[in-house]
Amino acid sequence: MAQKPTIPKGTRDFIPLEATRRNYIFDTIKRIFTLYGYAPIETPAMENLSTLLGKYGDEGDKLLFKILNSGDFLSGTDPAALSQMGSGSAALKICEKGLRYDLTVPFARFVVQRQNELVFPFKRYQLQPVWRADRPQKGRYREFYQCDVDVIGSDSLLYELELLQIVDDVFNAFGIKVCMYVNHRKVLSGIAEMIGRPDMLTAITIAMDKFDKVGIEAVESEFLERGLESEAVEKLRPILTFTGNTEEKIALIEQHLSETETGMTGVAELKTLFGLFSQVGMTQQITLDLSLARGLSYYTGAIFEVKALDFEMGSICGGGRYDNLTGVFGLPGMSGVGISFGADRIYDVLLGLDKFPSTTNEAPKVLFMNLGKEESTFALSCLKQLRASGIPSELYPDHTKMKKQFDYADKRGIPFVAIIGEEELRQGVVALKNLATGAQQSCSPTDIESILKG
Amino acid sequence: MAQKPTIPKGTRDFIPLEATRRNYIFDTIKRIFTLYGYAPIETPAMENLSTLLGKYGDEGDKLLFKILNSGDFLSGTDPAALSQMGSGSAALKICEKGLRYDLTVPFARFVVQRQNELVFPFKRYQLQPVWRADRPQKGRYREFYQCDVDVIGSDSLLYELELLQIVDDVFNAFGIKVCMYVNHRKVLSGIAEMIGRPDMLTAITIAMDKFDKVGIEAVESEFLERGLESEAVEKLRPILTFTGNTEEKIALIEQHLSETETGMTGVAELKTLFGLFSQVGMTQQITLDLSLARGLSYYTGAIFEVKALDFEMGSICGGGRYDNLTGVFGLPGMSGVGISFGADRIYDVLLGLDKFPSTTNEAPKVLFMNLGKEESTFALSCLKQLRASGIPSELYPDHTKMKKQFDYADKRGIPFVAIIGEEELRQGVVALKNLATGAQQSCSPTDIESILKG
Repeated sequence: MAQKPTIPKGTRDFIPLEATRRNYIFDTIKRIFTLYGYAPIETPAMENLSTLLGKYGDEGDKLLFKILNSGDFLSGTDPAALSQMGSGSAALKICEKGLRYDLTVPFARFVVQRQNELVFPFKRYQLQPVWRADRPQKGRYREFYQCDVDVIGSDSLLYELELLQIVDDVFNAFGIKVCMYVNHRKVLSGIAEMIGRPDMLTAITIAMDKFDKVGIEAVESEFLERGLESEAVEKLRPILTFTGNTEEKIALIEQHLSETETGMTGVAELKTLFGLFSQVGMTQQITLDLSLARGLSYYTGAIFEVKALDFEMGSICGGGRYDNLTGVFGLPGMSGVGISFGADRIYDVLLGLDKFPSTTNEAPKVLFMNLGKEESTFALSCLKQLRASGIPSELYPDHTKMKKQFDYADKRGIPFVAIIGEEELRQGVVALKNLATGAQQSCSPTDIESILKG
Repeated sequence: MAQKPTIPKGTRDFIPLEATRRNYIFDTIKRIFTLYGYAPIETPAMENLSTLLGKYGDEGDKLLFKILNSGDFLSGTDPAALSQMGSGSAALKICEKGLRYDLTVPFARFVVQRQNELVFPFKRYQLQPVWRADRPQKGRYREFYQCDVDVIGSDSLLYELELLQIVDDVFNAFGIKVCMYVNHRKVLSGIAEMIGRPDMLTAITIAMDKFDKVGIEAVESEFLERGLESEAVEKLRPILTFTGNTEEKIALIEQHLSETETGMTGVAELKTLFGLFSQVGMTQQITLDLSLARGLSYYTGAIFEVKALDFEMGSICGGGRYDNLTGVFGLPGMSGVGISFGADRIYDVLLGLDKFPSTTNEAPKVLFMNLGKEESTFALSCLKQLRASGIPSELYPDHTKMKKQFDYADKRGIPFVAIIGEEELRQGVVALKNLATGAQQSCSPTDIESILKG
């Protein structure tokens, strides 16, 4: 093979520094999920296509990666018929499995399948990759991790609070300033009802979702194009463009939606929620954003989205309440609420703001130079002690030129080298050199430990 | 959908307790890899089929999960021709990607592709799932994790030592007693040479690999069947059946292999290695096992296998040195050595020996009962403090019957419940109940922290 090997487009390798930084993100998120009583689950990469199909719309069905049936996949199929039915249907004749497209559908499938083993309300988190046959582009990959946390089997608003406390804690831990945007699907429904077009809810929410990006005029002309009466558009304007604080906004919609039962339910929940937020005291900004819609059709209650304040980036976290996620698998009436963290985007924000802790380093703390057999024997005994104390450390594998060994330490970003030469060997000490400052000191094996831990 | 949904055969879901226990295994292994200066990498689940094919033998090629090309996969193919060429070749017309089959080939591909970004010797670990279209059976899955640690770009025996120290530390951490079996491919080659049949090396190693299971007579008759002269079989017998300790075994092969250069190289390396093992002092048993062969054809130096001593289970860890893993991708002459931990089998051993730490529990430490709105407000402030101190804890979401709330705590295995009733609210205290002992005490929010941490 003359050419260098490659990987499929839209997929990525992670070198040690990247993998270490990603692990820092995952570990931080997991630690905080655990603090709130959420427990991990895992589901297989492959699901039956019958589980996945029809859950993500026609476009989603096309973006599923399908796995060719193993063995003689053509047996029992008529190749001529295959070609006549077209690739879409033909795929289903020769593929029974697909790669998971998100963590939500596998979670719903899991809850239904394992319902008798689970304790409800069921609080779970799941950090696993998903795959989509999307056209790859900057920041969009065919394999990427989702970090989902959900609770299912309760409609208590205390869970909305809990999840936003988690968001608060996670971004505090990362040192990223964010704003959490909150809205409510029932308020959006109430608005559609209030303007006399409940049938247009989806169109309205889609258009509202764009308000942030395109402004009021573009949204209004889209409304008109979609067949909304200009009267209705005018009724919408004060709500869309109102710029007061959260309390004032709630007062505004309470006044406008007083005639719609659904809308008032949403308003009441928002009131309770924002009351809880100020009761527990959130560190990060949190605000009601009536233009927040989120495209996913399964949301039925509060919806959330999080954006970084000091860095230009889309939503880095989002979610909401759903009432019937598991209904499609035969278990109706399970209300739940969940949030998903976008690990790739959080990575880019941390990198852009230089917020990865300096300890997020793939390198060990110290490299013992290899100056010969006896010297290495002493080094090995020091290493044993250091590792027992939890200090990542290693010995250069060959007795070779010092320069080569220093180069290795330097390239890997190892902060200290430990030198054991003839003299050190005789005295039972180690010369410890700080590669950043150049300072060198003679110390006992036990001293090294306290220096490196300090 | 009337029927409960299912997952593809040979795949698994992991419920919280299982996922938590698996994370304990992964975290322990990762922690120890890091102590020895190994850093994580990740590779994509999908590789180009050109990377995977031909690396695992014909049987392996058949067991690759292939991904149907997305979009119009039939375009440019002639369906009639597809059916004529048979499923094996037809698959390659409509699939360009496959799921990784192990971590070794992706690792080799990665090293070649990223060689200019890596520091050699390159020490990496990788914990990711792999997929094989094997017939599922007890303990054999179509999706399972591999936990590989390798160093590539050095032939220093200090790395063999380092990896076996890692094995020692890992099983010490798990509290599993093991024996590490060591052999050397060059010793096996020397033996084949010594009996005058270097051409039969593979047959001999395969037969030797079975010695453990079937005994000397079966192995010898297999040798004869495979065309080995009875003279050669007799020459083999003393080596196969010798039962002395490692020192005596090395002396025995040194004597028998003195005429073969390859064999003596192997003997010399084993001597050095066992010298190093006793120098650093291994905790677990470690022994030379001349019948250890390991089937993988890429090993060229020392080979390892690890078995639990107190639990019936096959090999739970294994590996060895290879000289040309990256040659097939255009980078020859890179010697490396690696070890792979079998997470699923380690899970079964830990479970069988009841060695999972009691802290490996998915549940939070304490559940605050929900006795009303004001009570919950107080609970939320206690929870905030507990979580800030790193104590997993939660509030029951609804003001409902005590029994229901106790049941929830009980089923989830939450060890403590915190009760805040009217009286506690007035005094600013919490009644903390240990569910195992039934003991209940009144304490301040700060007391809870020290009790739960203790």
